[in-house]
Amino acid sequence: MTTPFPHPLILDPLLIQWLQEDWGRGDRATQALFGRDTPLAQGTFLLKEAGVIAGLPLIERIYHLIDQRVECHLKVSEGTTCPARTVVAVVEGPAQALLMGERVTLNLLQHLSGVATMTRRYVERLAGSKTCLVDTRKTTPGLRLLEKYAVSVGGGLNHRFGLDDAAMIKDNHILAAGSITEAVKRVRAQIPFLAPIEVETETLDQVQEALNCGVQVIMLDNMTAPLMEEAVKLIAGHAHTEASGGITLETLETVAATGVDYISTSATITRAPWLDISLDFRTTAL
Amino acid sequence: MTTPFPHPLILDPLLIQWLQEDWGRGDRATQALFGRDTPLAQGTFLLKEAGVIAGLPLIERIYHLIDQRVECHLKVSEGTTCPARTVVAVVEGPAQALLMGERVTLNLLQHLSGVATMTRRYVERLAGSKTCLVDTRKTTPGLRLLEKYAVSVGGGLNHRFGLDDAAMIKDNHILAAGSITEAVKRVRAQIPFLAPIEVETETLDQVQEALNCGVQVIMLDNMTAPLMEEAVKLIAGHAHTEASGGITLETLETVAATGVDYISTSATITRAPWLDISLDFRTTAL
Amino acid sequence: MTTPFPHPLILDPLLIQWLQEDWGRGDRATQALFGRDTPLAQGTFLLKEAGVIAGLPLIERIYHLIDQRVECHLKVSEGTTCPARTVVAVVEGPAQALLMGERVTLNLLQHLSGVATMTRRYVERLAGSKTCLVDTRKTTPGLRLLEKYAVSVGGGLNHRFGLDDAAMIKDNHILAAGSITEAVKRVRAQIPFLAPIEVETETLDQVQEALNCGVQVIMLDNMTAPLMEEAVKLIAGHAHTEASGGITLETLETVAATGVDYISTSATITRAPWLDISLDFRTTAL
Amino acid sequence: MTTPFPHPLILDPLLIQWLQEDWGRGDRATQALFGRDTPLAQGTFLLKEAGVIAGLPLIERIYHLIDQRVECHLKVSEGTTCPARTVVAVVEGPAQALLMGERVTLNLLQHLSGVATMTRRYVERLAGSKTCLVDTRKTTPGLRLLEKYAVSVGGGLNHRFGLDDAAMIKDNHILAAGSITEAVKRVRAQIPFLAPIEVETETLDQVQEALNCGVQVIMLDNMTAPLMEEAVKLIAGHAHTEASGGITLETLETVAATGVDYISTSATITRAPWLDISLDFRTTAL
Amino acid sequence: MTTPFPHPLILDPLLIQWLQEDWGRGDRATQALFGRDTPLAQGTFLLKEAGVIAGLPLIERIYHLIDQRVECHLKVSEGTTCPARTVVAVVEGPAQALLMGERVTLNLLQHLSGVATMTRRYVERLAGSKTCLVDTRKTTPGLRLLEKYAVSVGGGLNHRFGLDDAAMIKDNHILAAGSITEAVKRVRAQIPFLAPIEVETETLDQVQEALNCGVQVIMLDNMTAPLMEEAVKLIAGHAHTEASGGITLETLETVAATGVDYISTSATITRAPWLDISLDFRTTAL
Amino acid sequence: MTTPFPHPLILDPLLIQWLQEDWGRGDRATQALFGRDTPLAQGTFLLKEAGVIAGLPLIERIYHLIDQRVECHLKVSEGTTCPARTVVAVVEGPAQALLMGERVTLNLLQHLSGVATMTRRYVERLAGSKTCLVDTRKTTPGLRLLEKYAVSVGGGLNHRFGLDDAAMIKDNHILAAGSITEAVKRVRAQIPFLAPIEVETETLDQVQEALNCGVQVIMLDNMTAPLMEEAVKLIAGHAHTEASGGITLETLETVAATGVDYISTSATITRAPWLDISLDFRTTAL
Repeated sequence: MTTPFPHPLILDPLLIQWLQEDWGRGDRATQALFGRDTPLAQGTFLLKEAGVIAGLPLIERIYHLIDQRVECHLKVSEGTTCPARTVVAVVEGPAQALLMGERVTLNLLQHLSGVATMTRRYVERLAGSKTCLVDTRKTTPGLRLLEKYAVSVGGGLNHRFGLDDAAMIKDNHILAAGSITEAVKRVRAQIPFLAPIEVETETLDQVQEALNCGVQVIMLDNMTAPLMEEAVKLIAGHAHTEASGGITLETLETVAATGVDYISTSATITRAPWLDISLDFRTTAL
Repeated sequence: MTTPFPHPLILDPLLIQWLQEDWGRGDRATQALFGRDTPLAQGTFLLKEAGVIAGLPLIERIYHLIDQRVECHLKVSEGTTCPARTVVAVVEGPAQALLMGERVTLNLLQHLSGVATMTRRYVERLAGSKTCLVDTRKTTPGLRLLEKYAVSVGGGLNHRFGLDDAAMIKDNHILAAGSITEAVKRVRAQIPFLAPIEVETETLDQVQEALNCGVQVIMLDNMTAPLMEEAVKLIAGHAHTEASGGITLETLETVAATGVDYISTSATITRAPWLDISLDFRTTAL
Repeated sequence: MTTPFPHPLILDPLLIQWLQEDWGRGDRATQALFGRDTPLAQGTFLLKEAGVIAGLPLIERIYHLIDQRVECHLKVSEGTTCPARTVVAVVEGPAQALLMGERVTLNLLQHLSGVATMTRRYVERLAGSKTCLVDTRKTTPGLRLLEKYAVSVGGGLNHRFGLDDAAMIKDNHILAAGSITEAVKRVRAQIPFLAPIEVETETLDQVQEALNCGVQVIMLDNMTAPLMEEAVKLIAGHAHTEASGGITLETLETVAATGVDYISTSATITRAPWLDISLDFRTTAL
Repeated sequence: MTTPFPHPLILDPLLIQWLQEDWGRGDRATQALFGRDTPLAQGTFLLKEAGVIAGLPLIERIYHLIDQRVECHLKVSEGTTCPARTVVAVVEGPAQALLMGERVTLNLLQHLSGVATMTRRYVERLAGSKTCLVDTRKTTPGLRLLEKYAVSVGGGLNHRFGLDDAAMIKDNHILAAGSITEAVKRVRAQIPFLAPIEVETETLDQVQEALNCGVQVIMLDNMTAPLMEEAVKLIAGHAHTEASGGITLETLETVAATGVDYISTSATITRAPWLDISLDFRTTAL
Repeated sequence: MTTPFPHPLILDPLLIQWLQEDWGRGDRATQALFGRDTPLAQGTFLLKEAGVIAGLPLIERIYHLIDQRVECHLKVSEGTTCPARTVVAVVEGPAQALLMGERVTLNLLQHLSGVATMTRRYVERLAGSKTCLVDTRKTTPGLRLLEKYAVSVGGGLNHRFGLDDAAMIKDNHILAAGSITEAVKRVRAQIPFLAPIEVETETLDQVQEALNCGVQVIMLDNMTAPLMEEAVKLIAGHAHTEASGGITLETLETVAATGVDYISTSATITRAPWLDISLDFRTTAL
Repeated sequence: MTTPFPHPLILDPLLIQWLQEDWGRGDRATQALFGRDTPLAQGTFLLKEAGVIAGLPLIERIYHLIDQRVECHLKVSEGTTCPARTVVAVVEGPAQALLMGERVTLNLLQHLSGVATMTRRYVERLAGSKTCLVDTRKTTPGLRLLEKYAVSVGGGLNHRFGLDDAAMIKDNHILAAGSITEAVKRVRAQIPFLAPIEVETETLDQVQEALNCGVQVIMLDNMTAPLMEEAVKLIAGHAHTEASGGITLETLETVAATGVDYISTSATITRAPWLDISLDFRTTAL
């Protein structure tokens, strides 16, 4: 089960902004050629390489905004691992609408599918382990909701959506407050009573101090596997544990073997190439 | 010389939107710990891997929006190829402001530097050739201005910024109009008189027809190198020529050898991993 | 320590909208009389009845937006319980600016101080008990950030700021899912990994089931004091407990005596009359 | 007859903003449980205490914005004085939509009905008198249109909607201009020719001077009943008269007995507790 | 004395929108040539034909938004009738800023000065008469505040700024209600108590009926001069009188001779050619 | 064939803004009289003077935004030269909707038809010549898309839509760069590779230099007819030629006789009086 897809009242303003960015003052060629008679056309979204498809609900939202006469037919389920040449969706409607929505739809679909595909690769490495993969706040500005959704489609979990989702106490906060204990105390007093607190730790002493404060999550930052294993044992389920810092596809299994609950990485977003997808048109009624 | 950096009246609304996305209802930890006394701090933007830095003017814009007391000092020039461990900028000001701007600034800086770095790799392959590298409209929604700016910082040129920048007549348009000649005629009559027209061609016949129409740019789409070479000769400088379609770092030189003017690729944006950059803090006046 | 005051990048768009609502096409009388010569004036914010002052930082933000020459001097600390006739702030600057900001500033200050005053009355009843008072999502549309801030100034804690702050599983959700266990399982799988879950319960069986699911908060909804006491004992600190439903100033102490951690009420916002505050002007340089 | 309900082109942007405030990044629990299968449900808006219902047209607007499949059935007329336990409206549609609109709809309905109920109490005291009750600009920021609408539903009349609706010349304006005569002259010359002017007066001399200026409304500010009676006689129908300043439910009849045309009070908004209303759900097709 | 110039909180959003319209993605030539070194320059606003200057305060607002280093020096007073070749203002600052603001500033200044010039011509025809010239709601969409301001600079008065400024009861309203009396009664009951009512009349019977209703303004629509004179006599000062319908510069004096209070015309806006103004640059520090 | 009409995603935000400008807080008279029962009505758009109709598609867009039940029937084609008394369109639907959209629709229709009518007069003077008429960036702020559309309906062509559409190198740019050659070189390096460059010239030497730079368009600014003729011969088709500067209806043919490709003038917009159009109502179902 994945993170729910954003509601239109939240998503549509972004989609409109992105269409306006692509159109500027209008589509010179398409509006000139199809603006008046609006022949009907059919477009086929085709995967050109194997991967995990993510973002299919966007197709309907985007075309709904452009022209409500466009009909969208999904051919696979969101999150399916598809071979190259898979038809993932078909759209039918006025040629002008189909062409004017093409680029923004593909740009989103390709990027999100790239993220889901990369996430799936990470998640598969963790199969059989109880450790879960989570994302970070390293997301492309403007796309956080959608990129985190794509991580979830790929099989990852979501960490904070923003600075208000939980209080993350990092080294600078601790330095400023004087100690983990003091930082947690002061933060606790100023945030919603059920907002979770996560503390970043680098040593076992810090882990112990965070544990004493009763925080919800303890981040084990840049620890060696043996140290992390000790930390996980020390915590013993009294807080969630999150491994963070420079973890790669190669080191994933070693880190998971420490028994840590969560491994966070930005790589599923920041190192994911776009999946190659095209939209092939056929004018149906000229 | 690069594409000019966007004016604040155009850029600031996007930056504000992105900060709001990251903050949600506020920075729980930072506002709790630094909200009242606002100690001063210093932050150092540090490259953690070698690459081309792009986006430095963003640092000042973002911190100006958050707190006008923050001072930004750039340590390298935009577009410099830097070794790992280069300090690219230093910011000084209230700790709360520095921390609240950290993530959005880094997300942009890392992504744009990744694009510039990838572009530089492509551009260097074309050194000694008269062929130029250009981008496409495959850009991350919301980031087109900045990603195209980053391509330019990396040494590439910019193609259309939107569907209104020029009229690009593609296969579907030609099909719908009946012929290249008819499509160009109809488009020409409905666009600003100085808007350029580019026509997508796949055969020498199409090239000849486009040439006859007096279009400004002829795209040679997915042609083999020998065919492209013939096309370039046929055009003989009477229109700009643009090679497009599945060109990779490996095939770049072969394509350039055909004498084509421009090679367009989306890979400098869609396949560029983020460059690793961190912001290291030091509280200066607790 | 209170909830941090919202950052200008979040608050200013609201303040601008509210000033525009009050001004329409402009202040007919003030702009006619003070628009050209801008005499200087002084305004004194005066409490006309005893209460807790909340919203003082708004004065500077609002006048900063109207005219940056206005200077604001706070005379008491945010959250102070003041007697009638207390001067809480003085503003100095162009008469036109002072008058055009008067109504919006007072409307906010009076309403927020009313909320803080009412909250303080509730909180004082809980003195000596370990039970904390929290607010709800029953807030005036558009004012949630500020009203929750005012509750915190009055001494209360904040519950969720929105539907995304935590997952609250209510009776309808349970009914739909078939059981608390199933509902928690499905929700857990689709929300950020550190998002807390709260479950609404009405019976001890439900309390036990929620407890078994390991949720963070158990709401004891409309329970009698004896039943609530049993529930609190059953939970025994393994989850936070929240009493909710029809609790009044009169029943507050009885409920607290059950040992429940939190009592939530909307009354501090929905039943709080505005505190009477005026802005008295003196033109200083005609 | 009441003030017309705001047109959707004016109201919808506010409603969308308020829904976004409540949802943040989405409804964690509801979207997780109802996001995919969208069972149908029925919701009943139930008055839990006696009062005047106001804001019923909001129900349809809000649910129309969330999901156009929701159907709304009003069971009583706007402005009806209802006993406790009255069903005022029923909504039917996808469970997710009903739940996601619940809180904002209720917050508005409860607050506006509270205002209408309080206004009705004031207005009833004036029954048999020719004096009308009017509101002021002391309204909750962002809600002025709706709160003034609610006052009208309760039986009151509306004063200015904003600073541009009429020119209100207050003591500070008079002081600055030197005299009522000079102030009226200067304001008259700079406002739309049919914009009414109201002057605030505290003495009979001021009343006489305002009368001489031919203003449309004379405010009798903080006058004793005998003084006000003299003022009303002096004015003798040559201008509208408005009593203002500290008038309570208790003093209302005494003031009306002076023969004044209008009594303005902010109490119908600033001292009105929310009316208790709930939305009871029943899932109809699980 | 003129209508006050709009406050920046109301005007700036429009100015920003208009600059963005003119710039699109940026000023290709200027940003390329002046973007980096920002030489200083001086610009002179020069009237190229005689006329009334209006809109001078816009110069400072626009340049303030583009670059706060630009300094503006006004050389004549707003509303001055200037001969050709008058320098009305000088701006100094970075060349890029001056050039990027040129077109929008001139477009506004030329149009508003055109309106003021045309208005002055009408107003001068009424010299010696007690009749005033007023504008209408026939204004260019988006520019109503500024065009009405320009009418006032030219010597005219402003009629309604919008449909909410007063209730104008026209023939269709009367038809729908059954009679003027019924229409006025129903409107009166649903509008703010001090909102004026104007009724459109075409016959003396209608004038009499409107008079009986006690409305504030009676419009004498498309009446012949003799009929209008009778109407004015009938009304005898008990309501304002407004002549409307097809009045031209030529018929102005005849209409004024009827003794009517106001003559409304859209011609000062809809038939006013732009005044020719240029901005001459001199780069001061290359 | 004309410039395509703007897509709703681009146009609707402007239309909504303009309706809100006209309505303010609502239509006092219409909402009071037609707000509740919504009788049906019919409105006829009637030309009251001869001219070219432009903007007909706006009628449907505006009424669609106000009330989707309104039906629009166009009676003539966009761009038709109509005699006085032509019915150009009929609208049917709720009376309230028809009345509330009247003013904004007429203001746009009258202004755009005025522009199209004036343009047609200019264009007709060029009949038989190969010279085309083009517009400029002297457009009413906020209305550029629509005014340029209206020019095209009248038979003119469009020049740049904004500063990003092409790089126009003017005298100040040349001065700053040192020479046309240097200016073109620097601009060429910083703009999209297919963006055209136009250079402003005043002498044959400048024309020759611009020609040598290979620019797309050479503007012949304020040249005498004989000089312009020489310039056109010199250029000999190697660049587009544009005559600019003080050209009037009277001098149009002389300028065209020089063989120049394009003549640009702002007069079709800045000197065009609105065409007189009315909307006549008939209530159909009272």
